[in-house]
Amino acid sequence: MDLLSIDSLTDARIADLLDRAQFLFEDDRSATKPVQTLNGKIVFNVFFENSTRTAMSFATAAHRLGASALSLSVEHSSVKKGETLEDTAATLGAMRPDAIVVRHRENGAPARFAEIVDAAVINAGDGTNEHPTQALLDAATMQHRLGRVEGLKIAICGDIRHSRVARSNAKLLPRLGAEVRLAGPPELMPEDIPQLSIDEAIAGADVVMMLRVQRERLEEDLGDAPGEYLARYGLTAERLASAAPNAVVMHPGPMNRGVEIDSAIADNPQRSLITLQVEMGVAARMACLEMLLV
Amino acid sequence: MDLLSIDSLTDARIADLLDRAQFLFEDDRSATKPVQTLNGKIVFNVFFENSTRTAMSFATAAHRLGASALSLSVEHSSVKKGETLEDTAATLGAMRPDAIVVRHRENGAPARFAEIVDAAVINAGDGTNEHPTQALLDAATMQHRLGRVEGLKIAICGDIRHSRVARSNAKLLPRLGAEVRLAGPPELMPEDIPQLSIDEAIAGADVVMMLRVQRERLEEDLGDAPGEYLARYGLTAERLASAAPNAVVMHPGPMNRGVEIDSAIADNPQRSLITLQVEMGVAARMACLEMLLV
Amino acid sequence: MDLLSIDSLTDARIADLLDRAQFLFEDDRSATKPVQTLNGKIVFNVFFENSTRTAMSFATAAHRLGASALSLSVEHSSVKKGETLEDTAATLGAMRPDAIVVRHRENGAPARFAEIVDAAVINAGDGTNEHPTQALLDAATMQHRLGRVEGLKIAICGDIRHSRVARSNAKLLPRLGAEVRLAGPPELMPEDIPQLSIDEAIAGADVVMMLRVQRERLEEDLGDAPGEYLARYGLTAERLASAAPNAVVMHPGPMNRGVEIDSAIADNPQRSLITLQVEMGVAARMACLEMLLV
Repeated sequence: MDLLSIDSLTDARIADLLDRAQFLFEDDRSATKPVQTLNGKIVFNVFFENSTRTAMSFATAAHRLGASALSLSVEHSSVKKGETLEDTAATLGAMRPDAIVVRHRENGAPARFAEIVDAAVINAGDGTNEHPTQALLDAATMQHRLGRVEGLKIAICGDIRHSRVARSNAKLLPRLGAEVRLAGPPELMPEDIPQLSIDEAIAGADVVMMLRVQRERLEEDLGDAPGEYLARYGLTAERLASAAPNAVVMHPGPMNRGVEIDSAIADNPQRSLITLQVEMGVAARMACLEMLLV
Repeated sequence: MDLLSIDSLTDARIADLLDRAQFLFEDDRSATKPVQTLNGKIVFNVFFENSTRTAMSFATAAHRLGASALSLSVEHSSVKKGETLEDTAATLGAMRPDAIVVRHRENGAPARFAEIVDAAVINAGDGTNEHPTQALLDAATMQHRLGRVEGLKIAICGDIRHSRVARSNAKLLPRLGAEVRLAGPPELMPEDIPQLSIDEAIAGADVVMMLRVQRERLEEDLGDAPGEYLARYGLTAERLASAAPNAVVMHPGPMNRGVEIDSAIADNPQRSLITLQVEMGVAARMACLEMLLV
Repeated sequence: MDLLSIDSLTDARIADLLDRAQFLFEDDRSATKPVQTLNGKIVFNVFFENSTRTAMSFATAAHRLGASALSLSVEHSSVKKGETLEDTAATLGAMRPDAIVVRHRENGAPARFAEIVDAAVINAGDGTNEHPTQALLDAATMQHRLGRVEGLKIAICGDIRHSRVARSNAKLLPRLGAEVRLAGPPELMPEDIPQLSIDEAIAGADVVMMLRVQRERLEEDLGDAPGEYLARYGLTAERLASAAPNAVVMHPGPMNRGVEIDSAIADNPQRSLITLQVEMGVAARMACLEMLLV
């Protein structure tokens, strides 16, 4: 069994994962002995694309369950020697880890891994395709803070076209009964979805999720005068004021403060769930690893 | 005790290692609880030369036995600050790991480590000298698939001059009763051994082991027209047809498909033992770590 | 509780740490079962500045106590994506490791981490400020070899101005009753302390601790003719002869042999405590981790 896409999870499975994430979140906070459900298991962290936070989150999740996470530094790997992705997968799979966590800049790379290896494969982000554990942790975070996902109005704003976070959330959250509104600069929106302005998306929203904008894109397409992106497309106090009372703010990180999000909003403990997302991220990934390996 | 060269192993020791590797290979496949013979031990992985597969293989072996593998990223190490190899060895040894796995581009570097540290040192490949655990895993793979090494005709083909894999196998396999035939482009053969053509080496062979050719060398010496190396020196279906019926194919990886080996051969499950080698690699390294540390 | 500076430790705490380091040092040498006082704990090693020896020392200390050390490769981290130090700290802290070991080229960076995270923060060297575990291991090493720190005359020689090792030792050792003499090239001395020549500092000293000089500085300020720095400011046999009989020699490593220290002195087992420092370093860091986490 693998975790490649939100699509591959049944509703019952999703409900179980979210419940278990809540339990593990509380369990870890209560500082009793760590659960050791994956004692002796081995998880390979195979990041073809660098990501501190996601790699550390998975490694922490694995170790908290008693497993070992072994990281492969792909910068230094056979990939540089011209080995195909399939051969790398076959090689790593033959070492018989229990799970392989794969991040890759190409869409579908984790799925290609999964076709080859016996180990459970977790997609930790592939190109512009999916990042299912991020969507699960986002849903778990909302559930934790707001008590539910059902019925929420959730604005996801920014570079929708290239965002695997947006894509996985756009699949998951409606299945949980939420209304998802995607908005961003026209240049960064997919063509096949309704074009909403940032202001329209945020109006009345219970949750405002801002996406990281790549600085490279800023320079190319969107102007890079200081404050320009924030004023046109970012989350400002004015925009947030149009959301529902007590609307919460999320961001998958790392943030560009003053670009896609006003710094004061990010730091407002009444509004910002940003570090809570990180904490829930470990719990959600523990739940995913348990689902696949126990 | 160290594992620096095939020469340092007695015949009895080799037999024990190969038996234990078979046992650990089966034990891991049968998915019972992992053996934890090295619980609490610490293994340093010190790779002065990058190698994904070997580093991950040793780390997996260590963790499967209950030990911890700590990797030193030499790219970022004191070595860059001009520290001598001896001082690096003394420093790492003083931390009292149980074993140090060393890969280095200089012949003899692991032996220099071993002179200085109390820990058991394993040579994970040194320059053009030796790679003893690779030879052990190769022998264990043959034994697993063909039931024996004794009496086998084994062709090892490619860049023999620079290959520590060839050198360790050329020491180990004859001691187990096999006939080893070394062949490669004349430019890449040592001068002190009989010059055999690739075709002569493969004719009637039970095992054909192809070596990776460095792409840099292709360009310099051997022509780099597409398919040229394969046609002249690689393993093609035609050449394999001249081997013994049901001859098996091996490669230490990572492969250059279409250069030293035809892709279809590498992927033929009846013939190719390439991923089996990787799997046996973990078991063989577990056996080596146990031999040194229990 | 954190370990950011020698100043934050009471005398009683320091005495406990040094005692415990001695115990753990002996315990590890006697090769009984490792103490597992930190079983299931997670330590993040966050090195914004590379350091093989310190990172491996902390990782070894953590694993020997039964904890897991997870290393964050900052070269590849969000820091490169423009994330602030505070956001990196909040993110890592939200993963709820038990301790975070921080090395950074900016003074005060570990303290900034500590203000944000719940985890215990250990300063593993910050800019030109402090390196408290190095001072603790140095004191423990002297105690082990000379039976005491009290009453010792200790010369610390080299680039005092930029040395966090010197600064932490200059705080710790006098509190233990030692007389500390700081000396170095005038260009590399702070202005607010008495200017001593190297020869004056070493005369009659019981301990001579040499600091690493940055090769870059050699070229810029101090001349880089071979042997020039050694003759003017390094530890030569002549200078050591003026120290107390049986004076011992220390160096935090990595050494520039023939620059700040004569090679023969570094290798003299009667005099040099350099590898003993490394060994004691693991024990001292075990003691620090226990103090913070048990």
